[in-house]
Amino acid sequence: MTEIWQDGSVGLVETQTARLFTAEDPLVLANGSRLGPVDVAYETYGTLAPDASNVVYLCHALTGDAHAAGWHPGDRRPGWWDNLIGPGRPLDTDRFFVVSANLLGGCRGTTGPGSIDPATGEAYGMDFPLLDVADFVTVHRALLAHLGLSRVLAVLGGSLGGMQVLQWSLSHPQDMTHAIIVAASSRLTAQNIAFSAVARRAITDDPHFHEGRYAAAGTSPDVGLSIARMMAHITYLSEDALTAKFGRAPQDEESTRGFGIDFAVESYLDHQGQAFLERFDALSYLYLSRVMDYFDPFARPDALVHVAADPVRYLLLSFDTDWRFSTAHTLRMLHHLEGAGLPVTFRELSSPYGHDSFLLEDAVYHATLRAFLDRALEEAR
Amino acid sequence: MTEIWQDGSVGLVETQTARLFTAEDPLVLANGSRLGPVDVAYETYGTLAPDASNVVYLCHALTGDAHAAGWHPGDRRPGWWDNLIGPGRPLDTDRFFVVSANLLGGCRGTTGPGSIDPATGEAYGMDFPLLDVADFVTVHRALLAHLGLSRVLAVLGGSLGGMQVLQWSLSHPQDMTHAIIVAASSRLTAQNIAFSAVARRAITDDPHFHEGRYAAAGTSPDVGLSIARMMAHITYLSEDALTAKFGRAPQDEESTRGFGIDFAVESYLDHQGQAFLERFDALSYLYLSRVMDYFDPFARPDALVHVAADPVRYLLLSFDTDWRFSTAHTLRMLHHLEGAGLPVTFRELSSPYGHDSFLLEDAVYHATLRAFLDRALEEAR
Repeated sequence: MTEIWQDGSVGLVETQTARLFTAEDPLVLANGSRLGPVDVAYETYGTLAPDASNVVYLCHALTGDAHAAGWHPGDRRPGWWDNLIGPGRPLDTDRFFVVSANLLGGCRGTTGPGSIDPATGEAYGMDFPLLDVADFVTVHRALLAHLGLSRVLAVLGGSLGGMQVLQWSLSHPQDMTHAIIVAASSRLTAQNIAFSAVARRAITDDPHFHEGRYAAAGTSPDVGLSIARMMAHITYLSEDALTAKFGRAPQDEESTRGFGIDFAVESYLDHQGQAFLERFDALSYLYLSRVMDYFDPFARPDALVHVAADPVRYLLLSFDTDWRFSTAHTLRMLHHLEGAGLPVTFRELSSPYGHDSFLLEDAVYHATLRAFLDRALEEAR
Repeated sequence: MTEIWQDGSVGLVETQTARLFTAEDPLVLANGSRLGPVDVAYETYGTLAPDASNVVYLCHALTGDAHAAGWHPGDRRPGWWDNLIGPGRPLDTDRFFVVSANLLGGCRGTTGPGSIDPATGEAYGMDFPLLDVADFVTVHRALLAHLGLSRVLAVLGGSLGGMQVLQWSLSHPQDMTHAIIVAASSRLTAQNIAFSAVARRAITDDPHFHEGRYAAAGTSPDVGLSIARMMAHITYLSEDALTAKFGRAPQDEESTRGFGIDFAVESYLDHQGQAFLERFDALSYLYLSRVMDYFDPFARPDALVHVAADPVRYLLLSFDTDWRFSTAHTLRMLHHLEGAGLPVTFRELSSPYGHDSFLLEDAVYHATLRAFLDRALEEAR
């Protein structure tokens, strides 16, 4: 497999796990509840500079994980943001040291609702505490401390990842000099919430959900989770992208009409729904999507007090065909941040691929990220 | 309840049923298969003119039924298009004679997949034949013949209803002088198909679906059908309408965060999903939605031959915030019809309510329908 990563990939990588909180020294959540132990799965790419001036911290989206770049042994495809991260790539691992961690509440190595509750010896299920974007930030900060780092050059994330970047920059601006927020939102709309609500209902109404105790019952709400994923995928792509990709093409010229997979777009959705079951947990989907519904940091009157006193340089990016988090969401963030006198670079990028664009390789998008990161590094030296 | 319909309602109405095809004289479908008996539930409003010149035939949408106007005893709300139909209303029952029938494949009195198959004594289930919009037209024409009518002043429908109007006008233009097509499409996009595909998967993957034999099993795929309906409702409203109607309002100021109905928009969706179960059947949802996916009348090279020889006057309406069947869908129909030299009036109406607008009372919309219908009636006399 070596040749695959000859050109630009960081190559073979390994996920590490750190116990950041214990039962005795638990994580205190925004709602006051306590959680311990908390383990966090993370990866790093590149080499830390002697003065630690080259750290970029990644925050992943709803269904991401720590494996952002490079290859695990046996991988059929590299990490989810591999096109961005590697030697010579915009997040150039010859110069930057990148940290990527699985979110609290996730299911890919970090403690979440599917983890064992030491109090019962069984999975937390719905007894897992409700989370807040601020809790993700608390855990990210603990990981940085664990790595001996106190301040990073940039925090970067798309979608829910961008929401974490925003929250972190507002509550602890001293942790970073730059913040990059891509295709994100500071406040979901009714339509955003509606899509997530129906996805969650598909999961919780699945008879195999067992009120969240499905692991103990030896089953899982696969139907509900795959329906949730299929629906979400419709919203991740623009209507034009779906048309360009599939149109009304039949899946198989010889197929007969029926209620199966007649159209190519149905095959695509089916594949997305089924593949998701292999890597994601329904409880994490519930917990992480609900966090997004409640996120509304600018509703606090003092939201901008900290960052105004310790300014962060922002890069805000949106995509013109993204109808899940349209440019209007980014403009709202821009309005608040500029209103507090903060330095913000905003750019609406043109891309046919809708919300998914933030994960894809686009020349202007990548050049914009590269220029911002290069300048940040230059100023830090 | 009398006072409710003093102003403009047609008052108490009754659904009638006609056996239009029998086992001996079956309905021959577009795909060649035969179906009998076929019963059709229908209602009429107003009085037929002695010269039968005042007939308007309604075609309903995916989840509509024959009960378009007036009140059934015990109704909490009138028929689904009551705001349009009644004395003094645009479809003025003092002057027009309106016919409204439940679709073939439906579940509200007309033969459908939930009806008893005389060959087995059990519900057809998935043994019901696949349908085509042309089959709806065949049954509509049989109902007209049953009523002693051969030619109508206008055929009118929105969404799937408009698709029937289009098909009917193309294949049997001699049946009508006018055709009114509202918020419809001649060809679904990949995104349209995708939403319907996920809705159908929610139904067919529901463990209570039993491959369509759920009635015999004494159950029904309620979870799947309600998920399908909730998802569809998101697409029926514009994002702005959802924001204006619900925004981020909590359902209950005292509710605690969790995975239930926290936001008002969640309560709305829940209500839509649950109420739907009382009046609709999952098999009808599968069959009727699949018909829409395959509809593509202009794909036939001879599509416009009949209507070009016997021109129909068209009124095509779309709504500017409808993202299920956007104005682009209507423009495609306009392009084809005008290309054949047919007289078409097209209007994009402004309404904040998205696809749902075609069911709502809007002054400009209703005035447009009224003017077109009045002129049609005038010319017929």
